[in-house]
Amino acid sequence: MTTTYSFSDRMREIAPFRVMEVVERARQLEAEGKSIIHMEIGQPDFGAPRQVVDAAVRALQTLPLGYTTTPGIPELRDAISGWYSQRFGVNVPRERIAVTVGASGAFLAALGAMVNPGDEVLMADPCYPCNRHFVRMFEGKARLIPVDDRQGYQPSAADIARHWNPATRGVLIASPSNPTGTSIDRPALRAIHSYAKARGAYLLVDEIYQGLSYTDDAYTALELSDDVIVINSFSKYFCMTGWRLGWIVAPAALMRQVEKLAQSMVICPPAPAQFGALACFEPETIATLEDRRQEFRRRRDFLVPALKSLGFKVPVTPDGAFYVYADCSSFSSDSSNFGVQLLESAGVATAPGCDFGDYRASEHIRFAYTRSMQELELGVSRLQKFLRAG
Amino acid sequence: MTTTYSFSDRMREIAPFRVMEVVERARQLEAEGKSIIHMEIGQPDFGAPRQVVDAAVRALQTLPLGYTTTPGIPELRDAISGWYSQRFGVNVPRERIAVTVGASGAFLAALGAMVNPGDEVLMADPCYPCNRHFVRMFEGKARLIPVDDRQGYQPSAADIARHWNPATRGVLIASPSNPTGTSIDRPALRAIHSYAKARGAYLLVDEIYQGLSYTDDAYTALELSDDVIVINSFSKYFCMTGWRLGWIVAPAALMRQVEKLAQSMVICPPAPAQFGALACFEPETIATLEDRRQEFRRRRDFLVPALKSLGFKVPVTPDGAFYVYADCSSFSSDSSNFGVQLLESAGVATAPGCDFGDYRASEHIRFAYTRSMQELELGVSRLQKFLRAG
Repeated sequence: MTTTYSFSDRMREIAPFRVMEVVERARQLEAEGKSIIHMEIGQPDFGAPRQVVDAAVRALQTLPLGYTTTPGIPELRDAISGWYSQRFGVNVPRERIAVTVGASGAFLAALGAMVNPGDEVLMADPCYPCNRHFVRMFEGKARLIPVDDRQGYQPSAADIARHWNPATRGVLIASPSNPTGTSIDRPALRAIHSYAKARGAYLLVDEIYQGLSYTDDAYTALELSDDVIVINSFSKYFCMTGWRLGWIVAPAALMRQVEKLAQSMVICPPAPAQFGALACFEPETIATLEDRRQEFRRRRDFLVPALKSLGFKVPVTPDGAFYVYADCSSFSSDSSNFGVQLLESAGVATAPGCDFGDYRASEHIRFAYTRSMQELELGVSRLQKFLRAG
Repeated sequence: MTTTYSFSDRMREIAPFRVMEVVERARQLEAEGKSIIHMEIGQPDFGAPRQVVDAAVRALQTLPLGYTTTPGIPELRDAISGWYSQRFGVNVPRERIAVTVGASGAFLAALGAMVNPGDEVLMADPCYPCNRHFVRMFEGKARLIPVDDRQGYQPSAADIARHWNPATRGVLIASPSNPTGTSIDRPALRAIHSYAKARGAYLLVDEIYQGLSYTDDAYTALELSDDVIVINSFSKYFCMTGWRLGWIVAPAALMRQVEKLAQSMVICPPAPAQFGALACFEPETIATLEDRRQEFRRRRDFLVPALKSLGFKVPVTPDGAFYVYADCSSFSSDSSNFGVQLLESAGVATAPGCDFGDYRASEHIRFAYTRSMQELELGVSRLQKFLRAG
C-alpha cells in the first residue's frame, strides 16, 4: 500500500530523537538477556510523589473529571502562583498562569501565538531539540548560537547581538539547560532581556528543570520583568513525566492569545493530572522532592569526577537538571558511533550529541544521572573496563 | 504593563469558541441563584465508566507511569485494533494506530505532517470550529463547503469537485458531524475518496462520535481503503472527556511522520488515561456504554419532536452524536442574540451557530442532549413558556 499524497516540507527539517534508537536497541539487548545501565533518558527514576498519586486517585474516585477550563483548574493556577511567591518571592497572579499539556503544550501555544512564517528565534546550540522544532512547526526558523564551556554553555548578550538580524523576533534561553545542566546568571539574563526588549522582541525562558538546582541562588526569570515568558513542567522536579502536565507564565495580553489557541489545540490539560498536581505544593511533598534533589546532587558529585577520571572532559560542572554533557573527543570524533559502542560493548546507554544541535555535537554525549548510585557505579566501572580495553 | 512584541497573524483568524461566553455567563447566573439547563457543551453527562476509573487507579497505585512510547502503549493500540476487527470487521494492524492527546492531538500531528503553507483543505460548513483552526495553524487554508439539510449537512463528491482548486490537498469529512449529528453514507464517502485519491489528495475522516449512532449501519471509513486517515476519541462514546485521549489511524508512511512530529509536540499521551482506556474495550464496559447509547437515543427521540413542536425546524433527524442543529429562523435572524435571550430569560444554555461556520449560522443554534430526560423536559417547558410569551 502506498500513499499518493506527499508530506509537508517542515517534516524534512523536523528530526526524530536519535536517542529513541538507543532506547529501542537497549530494549532489544535486554530482551536478549543483557544488562543495560540506562543513562539515556531525561526521566527521574523516582515516580510521582505518593501524595500526588493519592490526590489523583481521590479525584478519579469522587469527581466526574470532565473538561476543565482551558488554562486549567483555578486551584492549581493559584497553587503555582503561591509557589512563586513562597519559593522565589515573586508575585505572579493567577491570570498570568496557564496549565498546559506538558511543557510541550506551553511551547506550542506560546510560539503558535507569536511566530509568523520567516520569523527567527535565537537559541543556544546545544539545546533541547524540540525547541527548534516548535519554531519550525509554525514556519519560523530557529537560529542557533553555538555556545561552549568557556561561557558555561549559555549565550551572552553579546552573542545575542552578534546573531541578531532583521527577522529576529524572540530569544529562547533554557536554564538550567538540557543537555548541559548549566544555568544562566541574573546579570547575563537581564542584559539579554534588555537587548531583546529594546528591539520589540520577546524573551522566553525554559525553566523546565527549575527546582533541580545544586546552588543556593536559584531564581526565576519572572523576577526580571512581567513581560518575560516562562515555561515550566511538572515532569522533572515534580517527577510526573507520564502525566503530561506543565505550565506557562505570560503577560496578560499574550495569555489571551495562548488561551484562545490552546482551546483549539488541546481544549484543556488532562484532568486527573491536574488534580494530582494540586498535591505537589504541599509541605510534605516538597520535603520528599527536596530529599530527591539532594540525591540527584550526590549522584552528580559522584558522576562528574568519575567521568573525568575516565578521560571524559566536563569543563563546566553542571549546577542543575540531571545531565552531564561530556566531551568524548579523547575517545572518538563520532559521538553517535561511540555511543553505539558504549551500548553494545559496555551495556551503558547514553544520548548522542547530535540530538542537541550541530556545534561540536560529534564530540559530546549526554549522561543522565536518573538511576540509583549503585547503578551509576556499575555503569562507571563498565565504562572503565571498556575504555581501558579499547 | 504592556508587551512590546506582537502576535502572529494566524491569531487574527483563529476565533475563540463563542460558546465559552455562554458557559461563563451561565456560571454567573447560577452563582446568582438562577437555575440553568445546560445544553451548550458537547460533553456526556455520564462520567468515565467505573471500569476505566478502576483501571486508572490500579495503574496509578502500581506503576511508575513514566513516559510511554510516543504512539502509546502497545496493549492499548492492540485493543483499538481488536475493536475495529470486532465491531466493524476491519483489519487495522497496531502499526497504523497511534494514541494521541485527545482527537485534537491527532489533528495537530496529522495536519502538521501534511499541510504546507497555502495548502487548502476542504470541509463542510457547518463543522467543528477547530478543524478550520488546525489547518490555519500550519499556514494552510480551510475552504468551507456550505452544506444544508437537503444533503443531510454532508458534502457530496459533486460539492467537492465544485470547490476543488489547484491548492486543494485534502478533504476533511466529519461523520457523525458536530454540530448536525448527521452521517455520510458509504457511497457518498466512497465517491469523495475516489475523487480525492485520483488527484493525489488525502481524505481525513473525523469519527470522533463513532459509537454514538442511532442507526444499524454504522461503519468506519477504514473499510474504504488503507489510505484513509481516521481520527477518533475516547471523549464521546467512551465518556472520557477530561482525560484527553484520542487516536489516529493512518497509512504506514504517514504514521512515521506523525510519530516524529508527535515526539516533539507531546512526547506521549497521558499515561494514567492510557492505562484507564485499556478497560474501554472490555465486554462489561461496552455493555455500560451501549446502555448509555440507548439513553442518548431516547433523549434524541424526545428532543427533536419537542423542538419541532415549539417551532424550530429540524429538517434532518440527526442519526448520531448528541446534538440537534436547530433552525431558529422562525424566532430570530440573529441566533447569537437569540441564544442570549434563551439563556437570560428561559435559563436554557445553547451553542450559537456562528461557532460552526458562516453558512446560515445566524439562523441556527445547537442543542446538546447531554443532560437527563428530566432536565431536557424542564428545558423544553421553559423554552415553550419563553417562546409563547415572546
